[in-house]
Amino acid sequence: MDLASLPPPSRTFSSDNSAGVHPRVLSALAEANEGHALAYGYDAVTRRADERFADLFGRQVDVYYVWSGTGANVMSLTTLLGPAQAVVCTEGSHINVDETGAPERIAGAKLIDLPTPDGKLRPDQLDALAHAIGVEHHAQPGVVSITQSTELGTLYSPDELGALSERAHALGMLVHLDGARIANATAALGGTAEALRSFTVDAGVDVISFGGTKNGMMYGEAVVYLDRSLARAAKYVRKQVTQLPSKMRYISAQFEALLDDGLWIDNARHANELAGQLYKAVAEIPGIELDGPPAVNSLYPRLPRPAIGALQAWSPFYDWDEANRQVRWMASWDTTSDDVERFAAGVRQALDG
Amino acid sequence: MDLASLPPPSRTFSSDNSAGVHPRVLSALAEANEGHALAYGYDAVTRRADERFADLFGRQVDVYYVWSGTGANVMSLTTLLGPAQAVVCTEGSHINVDETGAPERIAGAKLIDLPTPDGKLRPDQLDALAHAIGVEHHAQPGVVSITQSTELGTLYSPDELGALSERAHALGMLVHLDGARIANATAALGGTAEALRSFTVDAGVDVISFGGTKNGMMYGEAVVYLDRSLARAAKYVRKQVTQLPSKMRYISAQFEALLDDGLWIDNARHANELAGQLYKAVAEIPGIELDGPPAVNSLYPRLPRPAIGALQAWSPFYDWDEANRQVRWMASWDTTSDDVERFAAGVRQALDG
Amino acid sequence: MDLASLPPPSRTFSSDNSAGVHPRVLSALAEANEGHALAYGYDAVTRRADERFADLFGRQVDVYYVWSGTGANVMSLTTLLGPAQAVVCTEGSHINVDETGAPERIAGAKLIDLPTPDGKLRPDQLDALAHAIGVEHHAQPGVVSITQSTELGTLYSPDELGALSERAHALGMLVHLDGARIANATAALGGTAEALRSFTVDAGVDVISFGGTKNGMMYGEAVVYLDRSLARAAKYVRKQVTQLPSKMRYISAQFEALLDDGLWIDNARHANELAGQLYKAVAEIPGIELDGPPAVNSLYPRLPRPAIGALQAWSPFYDWDEANRQVRWMASWDTTSDDVERFAAGVRQALDG
Amino acid sequence: MDLASLPPPSRTFSSDNSAGVHPRVLSALAEANEGHALAYGYDAVTRRADERFADLFGRQVDVYYVWSGTGANVMSLTTLLGPAQAVVCTEGSHINVDETGAPERIAGAKLIDLPTPDGKLRPDQLDALAHAIGVEHHAQPGVVSITQSTELGTLYSPDELGALSERAHALGMLVHLDGARIANATAALGGTAEALRSFTVDAGVDVISFGGTKNGMMYGEAVVYLDRSLARAAKYVRKQVTQLPSKMRYISAQFEALLDDGLWIDNARHANELAGQLYKAVAEIPGIELDGPPAVNSLYPRLPRPAIGALQAWSPFYDWDEANRQVRWMASWDTTSDDVERFAAGVRQALDG
Repeated sequence: MDLASLPPPSRTFSSDNSAGVHPRVLSALAEANEGHALAYGYDAVTRRADERFADLFGRQVDVYYVWSGTGANVMSLTTLLGPAQAVVCTEGSHINVDETGAPERIAGAKLIDLPTPDGKLRPDQLDALAHAIGVEHHAQPGVVSITQSTELGTLYSPDELGALSERAHALGMLVHLDGARIANATAALGGTAEALRSFTVDAGVDVISFGGTKNGMMYGEAVVYLDRSLARAAKYVRKQVTQLPSKMRYISAQFEALLDDGLWIDNARHANELAGQLYKAVAEIPGIELDGPPAVNSLYPRLPRPAIGALQAWSPFYDWDEANRQVRWMASWDTTSDDVERFAAGVRQALDG
Repeated sequence: MDLASLPPPSRTFSSDNSAGVHPRVLSALAEANEGHALAYGYDAVTRRADERFADLFGRQVDVYYVWSGTGANVMSLTTLLGPAQAVVCTEGSHINVDETGAPERIAGAKLIDLPTPDGKLRPDQLDALAHAIGVEHHAQPGVVSITQSTELGTLYSPDELGALSERAHALGMLVHLDGARIANATAALGGTAEALRSFTVDAGVDVISFGGTKNGMMYGEAVVYLDRSLARAAKYVRKQVTQLPSKMRYISAQFEALLDDGLWIDNARHANELAGQLYKAVAEIPGIELDGPPAVNSLYPRLPRPAIGALQAWSPFYDWDEANRQVRWMASWDTTSDDVERFAAGVRQALDG
Repeated sequence: MDLASLPPPSRTFSSDNSAGVHPRVLSALAEANEGHALAYGYDAVTRRADERFADLFGRQVDVYYVWSGTGANVMSLTTLLGPAQAVVCTEGSHINVDETGAPERIAGAKLIDLPTPDGKLRPDQLDALAHAIGVEHHAQPGVVSITQSTELGTLYSPDELGALSERAHALGMLVHLDGARIANATAALGGTAEALRSFTVDAGVDVISFGGTKNGMMYGEAVVYLDRSLARAAKYVRKQVTQLPSKMRYISAQFEALLDDGLWIDNARHANELAGQLYKAVAEIPGIELDGPPAVNSLYPRLPRPAIGALQAWSPFYDWDEANRQVRWMASWDTTSDDVERFAAGVRQALDG
Repeated sequence: MDLASLPPPSRTFSSDNSAGVHPRVLSALAEANEGHALAYGYDAVTRRADERFADLFGRQVDVYYVWSGTGANVMSLTTLLGPAQAVVCTEGSHINVDETGAPERIAGAKLIDLPTPDGKLRPDQLDALAHAIGVEHHAQPGVVSITQSTELGTLYSPDELGALSERAHALGMLVHLDGARIANATAALGGTAEALRSFTVDAGVDVISFGGTKNGMMYGEAVVYLDRSLARAAKYVRKQVTQLPSKMRYISAQFEALLDDGLWIDNARHANELAGQLYKAVAEIPGIELDGPPAVNSLYPRLPRPAIGALQAWSPFYDWDEANRQVRWMASWDTTSDDVERFAAGVRQALDG
């Protein structure tokens, strides 16, 4: 298990948040740095980015650029929820376990977190909540928030998402999609604007947290209201939840670059493919347990405990489910085949050793 | 009043938020974009920026980098306040009138806003709140939040701030300083680290929202806990209030550049000086009403209404107090003498015309 | 100033909250205590009380019984406000200074508190807020909350309240009336259901906190939605803000007794009259400063400081504005002429002494 | 299954909230109705009730009387929690499923709800949360809230509760006990003050929501701080969460009556015994599924669906788990043997029919 003699990969498999900024995005930032521009989005770059989003979704949408993924989710939920309403989500969803209670504190809402083996909600899980509707002792289910691709690296098919939305709407709920990795989902489901629309607009999603940071941007996400009537209070809520960037042009410029010429899909497709390469490179190594090839850009292998520690010391990555010896390996827009080979060599060494 | 023939300044006097990013900050961003770095601040750049802050204040301080000024204020207040406590501030403070109720919603706190002619609180205004202390029907004053330089372009002297802090502490309150323009204040009060310490550390301030965005950065502020015991919950609160940047190195790199070789003071001194130039260039124009030379980087002139509209159409700036025909002109780190001359020429034309 | 030899009144002038429960209310509680009744308002007594309110307002109204006045106000505001909205009120309003920040914490809303010499808002004060409407940096005025009778013992005329409501609605705001002493106002304005309607239904008020406790009940207030469309989330919000009584029949029974045969107006008229008697008995005493006869059941005299302390030690009452030597004397439904005479004798002794 | 010919019981088995007020409590209310008393607890009756609680727990405790059980829980949690902290509770706990999201909205806290077959948390469930402690992405477990007797009619033994508290404290959490039915638990565990202390003071509980309403009072609960240092902000928080009764003497008088001469235990013991009688009367009826005799005052039988509907139409009670045909029958302080016999006769008729 001695890894000392092996060179670790130049880029880790710890997170797509560990990756840098894509050169075209960095160039866009430099280009945006010309003279003065009115703050808070009243500038020409922001107008152009808005148009990119309209083109992408094939319709007018209301876009609000924000700082972070947690910010995008909290803003979305705050605009969608009334008092005494609750958010329905999975037990393992980012809003439930990785946002330090931000939705509860800021949106003031209960999260009804439901168990799921694969990170995906089912329509019948919504039906099971129907008994609470109309009963004053229970927070009223107001929004279903799903993640695509999910926190477990799985995907809703457009049909699955459509069925879930339909049930949600039938029960009086709205549908929010946490799309921190919506690009990876889009790439996996066809890699076109049509693919994106198939599981968003066409599937009945109301509002999207549209991720940028994990896909080659420096910072910035977008809250996209597909149902524009839901955006009435959005501009005030964005400021109230501390998510209004003052020098807005620098976020819009990044999104403009990302949406230009399909860069956002190229980045995500690359990350997905490299995760697939990593899967192939390690799947047969004795001692590793894997559930099959990745749907998007992450693997969740189970490993012997000593190997985990040794590998993390050599090239960092995160525990996923410590009790079950499960870790997460994640490819990024900038992962190279060389990184995959080096990392796989380390895994082999750690498990064979 | 015909301004059509006059070329407007290349850079407006609308806001220091309208300015771009300083070239050295932009370079730092490009340099930080090397390979992978652990997210959320567990990276080398962030450690270096932390050390810069310790050097600046001459002591160990706890620094939390955040997205925005509103975010820095909300995070500060949330960490300092207990339930049923209130924030004491001025009527015109940013937290009271320009943050869309974020402190109330997120910190859950009442703001006790006190009138003041010059944006500065006085110790005896705190004394007047003493009657509420210990009475269960009243929110308990827990934090005094002051702004330096103030929203009206004025400055607390170190002695004034020290006296206010002393009174606040005597009454059981903590002291928060909204330093969105702390660099302009520092430049005006001497332009050295000692000047900074004189109205912060030495004056008894507990926590600072230390501004970066308005002083040549692209984005990013820092919450600086001078009293480190108050930072116990800070890292959790930062995430909960949606202010934890994932790719942290890009904020820390900007701060590192800004604090390097006094750039942060140079930028602010320049802005202050250019506001002074503008004052000299317009003070004698008949029809303009001004209270004297600016203490920092903004002027609040009163103008005839028709002139305001004509000038704004020619080169944008904000109304300050519409009912009183008062506007705000603000210089930035990148304002040039040419900008001042062109703008002054426009003002002269608008008022003479 | 020696008061030792004078017997203090049997009932103090400290507060209508110091008074006991009217005998007919107490009897109603005993009568309601028969066998079992479904909890949370699904009982016959509550249905009957609802009908009393419909009769009183001459229309179907949605009534939600709650524990307390603060609870009624917080519930009202929480149902009326959207995110990022603010409540407009007077500086001295109960919601602003006597509810320990409950509206901010629970409704999550900013209170925009406006100065007023007599506890009454004016339409032009709303106009002055119009500049903030539509601007994302400012909490959006969503509700005007007024108090009738006011915290200063004054009254809006029906016309004044109508004009204020009209302006509020024109600006997109809803109107909440804090009626902790609505009975005293009704008694003062004519003492009939028509009088009540003149400054509520007819004046455009949307929701009322209808007081019971201060008017002879043991506990209990009612949130009355005159605009029933605003009550959609009310039953959930009542529970969420901790204001849903389980053994509801005991609140409804009290309201039924109070609304029966005009007891609620009789109680209030009595309190008003006794305050008037007290005014007559003390107005001419040298050293007392009074602004004229009371509109409802309270006086706000200014007295020499030593007399205040001596009187409070003899028969307790509250300071109102300590800095101005102003106190509050308040008559209740159970105050007697003998109480007035004894108290006035004490005042005379304290001031002459 | 024809129940028409059978007389239903005079008192239902729907809830202890459906019961009336005990005659001694009602008398105490009438006795308290003498003259004036200062509001908000500054009265003699309240001082006496405080002493009763001190006697009961055998030590000085800080007692805050409040309106309701939800109010007591929300007040407890709000005083115990810091920002970014979470409450650990069971999935089926009242705070999680029967308070309409009040803890989330008012305390601003996430609820980490854990599965449990019997309504009781285990120490190892706390251990499983340790991985989140110190990680900024997760709400920090700050309070363990348990219910005694539980929502499922079960009991923690003093040892079980002691072990849980010990683990909680070791992990840095405080312990809150929702004692809406603490009297039933006390009666079941020995029926003495020592029994009460064995699972509260001696077991390391920090704060109790001490129930009164379900045990023969008209309204009113008490938040009892066993660790008085935790009560520092309690009086302000009580008002802020809308739980400060103005005419306080009427709640204290009820508690004084209840704690006098063991009435609170007698009431609860009676309810427990009558639930036991009901169990014996129905356990052998074919078609009923029961898990054994009740620990306190409620049964959770499973019945054929048609029988449920017929019985509820005849004498109301609540569904517990509709999907599993499970209902709840609950005895009260005023349930009689005759009620039990009549109800059992109905059950027999419904199942035999």
